[in-house]
Amino acid sequence: MSTPIPASGDPSGSMAAHGSRLDPHLARYAARTHGMTASEIRALFSVASRPEVVSLAGGMPNIAALPMDVVAATVAEMLSKRGHVALQYGSGQGDPILREQICEIVGLQGVHPHPDDVVVTVGSQMALDLVTRIFCDPGDVILAEAPSYVGALGVFRAYQVDVEHVAMDEHGLMPEALREALAMLAKQGRAPKFLYTIPSFHNPAGVSQPAERRAEILQICQNAGVLVIEDDPYGLLGFDGQIPQAMRAQDADGVIYLGSFSKTFAAGIRVGWAVAPHGVREKLTLAAEAAVLCPPAYSQLTISTYLSTQPWMDQVKAFREVYRERRDATLESLEQHMPEGTSWTKPDGGFYVWLTLPPGMDATAMLPRAITARVAYVPGTAFYMNGEGRRSIRLSYCFPEPDRIREGVRRLAGVLEEELELIATFGTAIGAPGTHGAGAPETTAPGPEVM
Amino acid sequence: MSTPIPASGDPSGSMAAHGSRLDPHLARYAARTHGMTASEIRALFSVASRPEVVSLAGGMPNIAALPMDVVAATVAEMLSKRGHVALQYGSGQGDPILREQICEIVGLQGVHPHPDDVVVTVGSQMALDLVTRIFCDPGDVILAEAPSYVGALGVFRAYQVDVEHVAMDEHGLMPEALREALAMLAKQGRAPKFLYTIPSFHNPAGVSQPAERRAEILQICQNAGVLVIEDDPYGLLGFDGQIPQAMRAQDADGVIYLGSFSKTFAAGIRVGWAVAPHGVREKLTLAAEAAVLCPPAYSQLTISTYLSTQPWMDQVKAFREVYRERRDATLESLEQHMPEGTSWTKPDGGFYVWLTLPPGMDATAMLPRAITARVAYVPGTAFYMNGEGRRSIRLSYCFPEPDRIREGVRRLAGVLEEELELIATFGTAIGAPGTHGAGAPETTAPGPEVM
Repeated sequence: MSTPIPASGDPSGSMAAHGSRLDPHLARYAARTHGMTASEIRALFSVASRPEVVSLAGGMPNIAALPMDVVAATVAEMLSKRGHVALQYGSGQGDPILREQICEIVGLQGVHPHPDDVVVTVGSQMALDLVTRIFCDPGDVILAEAPSYVGALGVFRAYQVDVEHVAMDEHGLMPEALREALAMLAKQGRAPKFLYTIPSFHNPAGVSQPAERRAEILQICQNAGVLVIEDDPYGLLGFDGQIPQAMRAQDADGVIYLGSFSKTFAAGIRVGWAVAPHGVREKLTLAAEAAVLCPPAYSQLTISTYLSTQPWMDQVKAFREVYRERRDATLESLEQHMPEGTSWTKPDGGFYVWLTLPPGMDATAMLPRAITARVAYVPGTAFYMNGEGRRSIRLSYCFPEPDRIREGVRRLAGVLEEELELIATFGTAIGAPGTHGAGAPETTAPGPEVM
Repeated sequence: MSTPIPASGDPSGSMAAHGSRLDPHLARYAARTHGMTASEIRALFSVASRPEVVSLAGGMPNIAALPMDVVAATVAEMLSKRGHVALQYGSGQGDPILREQICEIVGLQGVHPHPDDVVVTVGSQMALDLVTRIFCDPGDVILAEAPSYVGALGVFRAYQVDVEHVAMDEHGLMPEALREALAMLAKQGRAPKFLYTIPSFHNPAGVSQPAERRAEILQICQNAGVLVIEDDPYGLLGFDGQIPQAMRAQDADGVIYLGSFSKTFAAGIRVGWAVAPHGVREKLTLAAEAAVLCPPAYSQLTISTYLSTQPWMDQVKAFREVYRERRDATLESLEQHMPEGTSWTKPDGGFYVWLTLPPGMDATAMLPRAITARVAYVPGTAFYMNGEGRRSIRLSYCFPEPDRIREGVRRLAGVLEEELELIATFGTAIGAPGTHGAGAPETTAPGPEVM
């Protein structure tokens, strides 16, 4: 029955790189859409998902640690008690009971909002999308760590926002670099709309800001009148059992705090939240209603029932142990196998190690050879808006079994050794800057599998 | 532990109308955020949710017709078979099995896409948000029916898109009015980015386009090079059991089709979809990933399991009967009680009757008095971007029991009679144009409870 119109086509079609078919709608897209293309590494990751490849790329939580019978009992209970609410439209701001429970959870991190200050979202990704939507015009600038979360960069790109990266050290974002970035922008007559930061167990850097550094960063931002977006998906996943105090605990009006149940319960329910000052919360809710009407009551009431009927903190502790064991396997095998000149961060929580390769190496160019050697990672360029990160790699230890991690690191070390030999022989590795894809900034989104 | 900074405040705060607290972040918002304020009628609806008020306002599906034990069995089955997929991150485009099932469903409406052409979204609201995001720059113009879906207008407003309303008659959008609107825009040198239309069982107008009119509208749009966004949440809910053929069935490349499980299963799972041409689908997926990473696997696998294990079409038939009975109660009691000079549409499916009041009346101004008389509706102005609709009312018959509907219509008729008496005595109703809130366009979002 279908009678498609022949594609008239735009011969200048920039889609050509990602499909042989021309897109007849090309001339119709919004300005924000023109930079929106699938990342080159996306195709590689479809290969990397084969079982013979050890993937140290994906940031998928290890939900095998979550007993399925507990989930099943929770959902049965939820449907019997609040089924007709779970299946219906709900508030755009989120379920009131869940918002109270979220207040209790963030209380563990020293944050004590009113439930009215909480907006429930479809994962904290949506909270970040909405925050950017309400604050950022095209051409605005924001500050983010160098490197920063790839999913956040995708949002900033989608809203045509410039990102000024701020350097980190082993204690996270450097206050001195933040001051310099602010001074540099002020010289250009630009005021950043906000600082986006992940103070605890950073993705991808695997480092955390100590308390005194958080205070210093907050002070700098307060003095400069810069809003802070504190993204905190891993705050409860510190391996020593200590829960870092959130930046929002020290500043209720200058910080928007983003949280998520993806790592403490399950990512597939897509429930996150923002804690925001009154006026901002009102705008976030209106923006959320335009975006999705309301977050899924079905997901919200599932996690709400789970929190009220299950020993959820014991489960968080179980998750911590799962990830600590994997972090240990990662660090031990890196120590054992990595060639000289390689360095890496030592995470105290979260999912990631940030690896820096010896000089002259290019992690982006090396990726196809690593996948051929049956190990996958995310090259550092994915975590920058400016093409930096070529000598860096993000290793995710959250998902594979410890033995697989060890095997993956061994394989990766083998690839590095080969590269180093090539450099020693020819002065450069194959595919170093100047060859395929190298030198260009990573301006595109690699997809949810690498978040 | 919280030490809030005192709000410095912006004394010019336009938030003043919606809260006594000033918003210290006011100067930071994006241009698109400035028009984003809560609707005045929102406060009224919080009153309207009291049990003594018969609400003919909300568009909530009647999920009481969905057996909870069936849902519980479905979820238990889903968790036992695909639990670890349901709780994990998934594809940004949506679950592949669900996308195949969606192809079967739209096949009932003559639409035969490839599963790759389907993008699963958080309700079809998100599909509409993404379509607008990828196509519309601020200041772009789109075409929509007069009146149009309030949630769509909220999206267009959020992206600073101008809406040119196109008149309808009892067979929906009028081709002649569409030609005129296109000619008028062409004279202004403007090309609409798309036509947004609900051809079947229109929200709020309660009318449907016959097949020949759909073909004519498609032809006009093809000739003018205008993309069609076909929003079809009610397509399976025709009371005579006939399923209208979708516009997308006749044009695979010029139509983006939006569908939803909100009315055929449950709104609380928030699962909708777009069927889009290849290039557009790719952009939609990238935009979806920036917005939410991926739609909830938990919801998707629930509906997928439901479709594969339950006689879902029997349930759709049960829903049809529920709504047909309520439509009948509405039309009968309107016939019985409404004063002369009042007219209304006669829906063959869907949730809504569009009521036109006698000359001189103002449905927006009358709403507080109606709520005092314990009946609620949505005034027509909510469904226009340009302040029109003052003489119109949307009555939703989807949710209340038939006897409650009859009582609500009786109460509404009483309010109308009183208004008409006032007009006969004083020449105008209290609160007619010129008094509180009247005359101004409804530029704000009334909230999800009236969708």
